[in-house]
Amino acid sequence: LSDEKPESKTGRPEERFLDPANLEAERREYVARLQQLIAEQLDAELARAARELSPGNLAEVLRPLNREETAHVLRVLPPDHLADVLNELDQQSLSALFDILDVDEIADLVEEMPSDEATDLLGELDSEQARQIMAAMEEEERGEVAELLQYPPHTAGGIMGKELATVTEQTRCRDAIEAVRGLDEQDLEEMHYVFVVDRGQRLRGQIPLVKLLLAEPLAMAQEIMEPDPPAVEVDLDQEAVALFVMTHDLISVPVVDKQGRLVGRITADDVLDVMEEEASEDISRMAGMSVEEFHEPSSLRVARRRLPWLLGGMGGEIGSMLVLRHFEHGLQAMVALAFFIPVIMAMGGNTGIQTSSVVVRGLATGEVDMYRMGRHLLRELLTALMTGFFLACCLFAIASVVVGDPHLAFVLGLSLLVVVLVAAMAGTGIPLILHRLGVDPAVATGPFITTANDVIGLLIYLGMASALLSLHGAAGPS
Amino acid sequence: LSDEKPESKTGRPEERFLDPANLEAERREYVARLQQLIAEQLDAELARAARELSPGNLAEVLRPLNREETAHVLRVLPPDHLADVLNELDQQSLSALFDILDVDEIADLVEEMPSDEATDLLGELDSEQARQIMAAMEEEERGEVAELLQYPPHTAGGIMGKELATVTEQTRCRDAIEAVRGLDEQDLEEMHYVFVVDRGQRLRGQIPLVKLLLAEPLAMAQEIMEPDPPAVEVDLDQEAVALFVMTHDLISVPVVDKQGRLVGRITADDVLDVMEEEASEDISRMAGMSVEEFHEPSSLRVARRRLPWLLGGMGGEIGSMLVLRHFEHGLQAMVALAFFIPVIMAMGGNTGIQTSSVVVRGLATGEVDMYRMGRHLLRELLTALMTGFFLACCLFAIASVVVGDPHLAFVLGLSLLVVVLVAAMAGTGIPLILHRLGVDPAVATGPFITTANDVIGLLIYLGMASALLSLHGAAGPS
Repeated sequence: LSDEKPESKTGRPEERFLDPANLEAERREYVARLQQLIAEQLDAELARAARELSPGNLAEVLRPLNREETAHVLRVLPPDHLADVLNELDQQSLSALFDILDVDEIADLVEEMPSDEATDLLGELDSEQARQIMAAMEEEERGEVAELLQYPPHTAGGIMGKELATVTEQTRCRDAIEAVRGLDEQDLEEMHYVFVVDRGQRLRGQIPLVKLLLAEPLAMAQEIMEPDPPAVEVDLDQEAVALFVMTHDLISVPVVDKQGRLVGRITADDVLDVMEEEASEDISRMAGMSVEEFHEPSSLRVARRRLPWLLGGMGGEIGSMLVLRHFEHGLQAMVALAFFIPVIMAMGGNTGIQTSSVVVRGLATGEVDMYRMGRHLLRELLTALMTGFFLACCLFAIASVVVGDPHLAFVLGLSLLVVVLVAAMAGTGIPLILHRLGVDPAVATGPFITTANDVIGLLIYLGMASALLSLHGAAGPS
Repeated sequence: LSDEKPESKTGRPEERFLDPANLEAERREYVARLQQLIAEQLDAELARAARELSPGNLAEVLRPLNREETAHVLRVLPPDHLADVLNELDQQSLSALFDILDVDEIADLVEEMPSDEATDLLGELDSEQARQIMAAMEEEERGEVAELLQYPPHTAGGIMGKELATVTEQTRCRDAIEAVRGLDEQDLEEMHYVFVVDRGQRLRGQIPLVKLLLAEPLAMAQEIMEPDPPAVEVDLDQEAVALFVMTHDLISVPVVDKQGRLVGRITADDVLDVMEEEASEDISRMAGMSVEEFHEPSSLRVARRRLPWLLGGMGGEIGSMLVLRHFEHGLQAMVALAFFIPVIMAMGGNTGIQTSSVVVRGLATGEVDMYRMGRHLLRELLTALMTGFFLACCLFAIASVVVGDPHLAFVLGLSLLVVVLVAAMAGTGIPLILHRLGVDPAVATGPFITTANDVIGLLIYLGMASALLSLHGAAGPS
């Protein structure tokens, strides 16, 4: 009997969490199992298998399935589990939903979801579908979602939820607990604070649940509340919200409007999603692509998103081509000059990426600040001097051995040093300037800086070579 | 009277939170203000200014100060505020602490800190300093920290805290509340769940505080607990912990040992730090540098960290040099071949970075899985076919105009297509293979893939040119 899985109070069978230490193998196993049950049309067993997974794991396991298979699984799920899993689904799995449910059924599910997640879901649908679903929703939930949809998706308003327990400063703790009891069960899941507002709904304080738990029943809210708690304004960018939450080690933050009125709250799990999104965005911009393509199954659409970056890079390299053509005679006179084009370009490129990554990441996490710009530039310049000098010596030695011409080897070493210095300055300065201009500096890190470094590097290298070696060539034997 | 700032229960004056929408300007203002107060030796005012900032903001404002200035500010702070701010300080500010306090005073501060933060702090000090401080700490806190220090820092054990409220399944809710009341005030701050364990300390369930708040006083813990809650094992890598917390939308997760015994808990704000750390690590590896250099003020040490990557890249480019030297006669015969070396290299490099970034980020966030490897490779191959073909046509047109040789233009176009295809395969395949081998695939994205693409790209380009154009050269007029 003790082997029986206990039923939780909501009547749902015990959830399983895939072992995080062995996630891939466990997921693969479940995918295979679901696909087999679908193929064999064993719906009752399929429902059991799907329900024993937590919503987050189930959504992951559904991802590799095709649309028909996904629809099959969603159809056998009980409604409460379906509402939980809905928010975790990707675009393709979501579209499968419309194959099996009508608008009223979907509206019922959306009503079950937390307001922020329901808003995200509706925001991802096309506007006609979203309109129909909202029209079929109950008054209260529709109102919340309609309000949340008004805020730009990447602001505090766009990621906050409307589930709030509020009391006034004069509320007795006993009554505050009753206020919490009056909320829907689903609203309680992410509740960590009771908020204290004045008659104008302005945020005055917050009470952590643990304080309410230990308080005297007749104590007033204002006696145990944390006054003027950390809060963010509704139009603050989500990246700034994430930084704020991190700086102050919060697990939940209230959101207020311009007048200081409490309009919602953001919990740490929403902030985790924001951080993942922003990190992906930085990385994709640094690599010269868009963050949307992570989830894009169509090669054509991926290609269309990548092409502008590649074409931009190619356009920039026309500059390299023109530089090389300008020095055509020098290259003809000394073909060995061409041997070192890749190493000069690569060292400039690597240095540019290293320095710009430090700045971009530093600006994103708040570690690098505009007021420390001078100090940072100095550090990078000194670093580049040292690495550049060391690399220049190596290249001098290599070139001396390979081509046996100490003059060329000297020009190579000197060029490399200058190229590394210029690349370090460009890699540090350009992101900082972009940041000051209000442009995301991550766009500077990818193909843009690399291409600029290529053109400048070649100009420096071949310019020096033609200036210094033509002198030598004129004096030489030939 | 209503303008007076209220005092919180702990007697500390009201904290200020810097406006996240105007963070840089506000920080700069505070830095200037603190520096002026330090210079004028106005200690009482300095203490007031420093204390009105939240610990997180104060740590940020201290960062640009030098060691003497930092020591000055820390010296005027009251001990409770100092303990709060300690955990947020960076290395340099921490070392300032030893200038103003003796070991016993520091030990007293460390005792005030949450166990996970105290452990992080001691882990950052050199081992002799850490040993002295621990020797001066009280028995209980020393035991907790000594236990936490045993776990590798990047595992669940290394980031968890020991502050736990535990009850048994038969505990009445009334008594569970009394158990919470028995904890230290500082332990209550990050308390979101009461954990339910059996007599062997094995985790049986958890009770969200809101459930305890609304429960009947005589109900038993097992009636209201969430049985078998999501938990992680103590040796799980912190990146897997972060993924687990995100997948299941948790704000706190219990940590168990191999036998299922509850040993600690990790809260969402710790996970936020982990995510930031891991994202910085991915970005720094992709750029060919180490994550430590973000906080490194010494150029010499930064240079020493970057040099191995740069030298590796340079070593690889010797391959490019040898390839070019191998085709010396071809280059001499047709110097125009050299004009297009940069564009071929750049397009291969950009494609390699785009494709590998998608894989690296996808593996880090769990979006790309080994079992979808085939599908992903196919998507990238098709994408590369499309972008490569388009770019090849552009390059054909440009080369036709610039050098006016349709044969060379054809060779260029064809080479570019092949180079892009190979770069896409290498950029997708190498990270996936590294991941399977248990190596962090991010190391493949930086200089490594770029350099490999350079060498292979030149080999393809010049090989094709010498094969196809020498035929043409023999048949041509010359």
